[in-house]
Amino acid sequence: MRALLLENYHDDLATAIRSLKVVERPRPVLGPGEVLVRVDAAPCNPSDLLLLQGKYSLKTLPTVPGWEGTGTVVESGGGWLGWWLRGKRVACSLQDDRDGTWAEYVVASAWQCIPLRGNVSVEQGACLTINPLTAVGLLETARRGRHLAAIHTAGASQLGRMLIVLAKEAGYPLINVVRRAEQVELLQSLGAVYVLDSSQDRFATELKSLCERLGGTIAFEAVAGEMTGVVIRAMPAGSQVYLYGALSEEACGGIDPIDIIFHLKSLRGFYLGAWAKERGAMGMLRAANRVQRMIADGRLATRIQRRLTLDGAVEGLLHYVSHMTDGKVLITPHAHD
Amino acid sequence: MRALLLENYHDDLATAIRSLKVVERPRPVLGPGEVLVRVDAAPCNPSDLLLLQGKYSLKTLPTVPGWEGTGTVVESGGGWLGWWLRGKRVACSLQDDRDGTWAEYVVASAWQCIPLRGNVSVEQGACLTINPLTAVGLLETARRGRHLAAIHTAGASQLGRMLIVLAKEAGYPLINVVRRAEQVELLQSLGAVYVLDSSQDRFATELKSLCERLGGTIAFEAVAGEMTGVVIRAMPAGSQVYLYGALSEEACGGIDPIDIIFHLKSLRGFYLGAWAKERGAMGMLRAANRVQRMIADGRLATRIQRRLTLDGAVEGLLHYVSHMTDGKVLITPHAHD
Repeated sequence: MRALLLENYHDDLATAIRSLKVVERPRPVLGPGEVLVRVDAAPCNPSDLLLLQGKYSLKTLPTVPGWEGTGTVVESGGGWLGWWLRGKRVACSLQDDRDGTWAEYVVASAWQCIPLRGNVSVEQGACLTINPLTAVGLLETARRGRHLAAIHTAGASQLGRMLIVLAKEAGYPLINVVRRAEQVELLQSLGAVYVLDSSQDRFATELKSLCERLGGTIAFEAVAGEMTGVVIRAMPAGSQVYLYGALSEEACGGIDPIDIIFHLKSLRGFYLGAWAKERGAMGMLRAANRVQRMIADGRLATRIQRRLTLDGAVEGLLHYVSHMTDGKVLITPHAHD
Repeated sequence: MRALLLENYHDDLATAIRSLKVVERPRPVLGPGEVLVRVDAAPCNPSDLLLLQGKYSLKTLPTVPGWEGTGTVVESGGGWLGWWLRGKRVACSLQDDRDGTWAEYVVASAWQCIPLRGNVSVEQGACLTINPLTAVGLLETARRGRHLAAIHTAGASQLGRMLIVLAKEAGYPLINVVRRAEQVELLQSLGAVYVLDSSQDRFATELKSLCERLGGTIAFEAVAGEMTGVVIRAMPAGSQVYLYGALSEEACGGIDPIDIIFHLKSLRGFYLGAWAKERGAMGMLRAANRVQRMIADGRLATRIQRRLTLDGAVEGLLHYVSHMTDGKVLITPHAHD
């Protein structure tokens, strides 16, 4: 089978992408409880880019990247779940050391596969397990922690748009932070009530007063750099900031010690793998089914800008990393130029 | 009565100190459950300096600074505890909006007063409630959280030396971080086993390997600035950093988002007031009694560099802030030049 191979990590992203090679790999052998998925499509997520850079160092090199994807189960290594999945369309998420989805075939544990409803397209199915479930996980974290409102600092991202939809359905107040003026209207058109533009001078003051008014004591921070400190400063005493991304590619800074020590604000992380473990397989399946219903009736959608073949992946990924706001790219391993 | 008065906060510390005035204040009126303490001595702690700068904004201005001190209870506003305390030497800690200890008399809640043993000196009694109890609180936090070892980044501070003694008695592994080479030997002479000098190039690498070897998954960080990020980076996945000071006077920075997101390390605060609330009045009394025993037999001691009168306080505090490592200064409101 053909696959994209990563042989070394490179701190520089463009170098890392250029180093990817299309290779012939032996078709993987299945163990009990595992299934073989013929991959139809696999997206490139920020966590894939981090892997290429060695910043998410879960994998032994050389490896095939790709944390999620969709396809059809063509073989089972044993077990009732694998047997039942044979021939079914699934979405799968792989949070371990094995080869990933940027290949014609991938091995997954049967319980990591989510059977797809007929009306969920290949494109939406490929992006089912990371963004929408993270959005569900963030909102659930806010509500379980009894926070009255939440801040999200990547308001205009794909995940941000999903969060707006989910928060609106739940009647949960969400303070959306965007980085450019034109994104304010865009988010309002999606139903966002509170949108703040961080490029404005009055941003910090407005964020502070909005947090006070709504009880915004939890933040989902995906920018990092100085933004982390600005958000912590704006929030009321006792607030919690969950970092789940680093769009600025900078270290978190500008955190006022007084906020941490005397106002007992805290900084911690959120990532899907840990949340999924906490929630358990059945809980994740329930969340995934809810997401599928919302995708099927058009309430949730991932925007796709382009499909890439394995041979065109390097060129396509290089273009993508400078045009991320246009939507995700999908690698379609069985397609040819 | 005479007192030192703070009329405005000043970000610049020297300006703040110079703004302190000796004034005549009416002798305070007592409410039920309160006692009047004739102050013998009150130290200047880092948290007092933060108050002067308005960074610990608990108090309505104008106010009398001074978060702790020692003296004799001369009057009771009612209640059995206050009645019992009359005539007794006490140490008191004031974590609220009322006037503080830098005055001839101070009002305290009876339950905030810890009766002193006869063999605890005025000097040691004045410094009983903040440093030693914080050291007890930090060590207890580490042990209750089942961390196998702890890091302390202000190893050579007064609190650091107390922590070394307490950790040694408990047989608890403590990794002490100092900022100058000569402090390594000093701490070793106090019984410290693990001492790292952060000015050395190999510091981060050594800290990392020591954390791994000993299971150092909790840190007590009092430097802030880039140190916070360096410590977080060196610790194993899942580690917790408790910030309780900011000796560098800089914002916390250099925190790698990957550490927070994927390695689930966290940053939170520790301060005595919050810990005391959690532990309750009886728990604090028990901790204070243990500390008194250790002070009485010489195991714990606060080093005092100088006593100041109210009239000499401004000059003395200005000298102190550039000579902190020589020991604390005590304000003795009834003494005269």
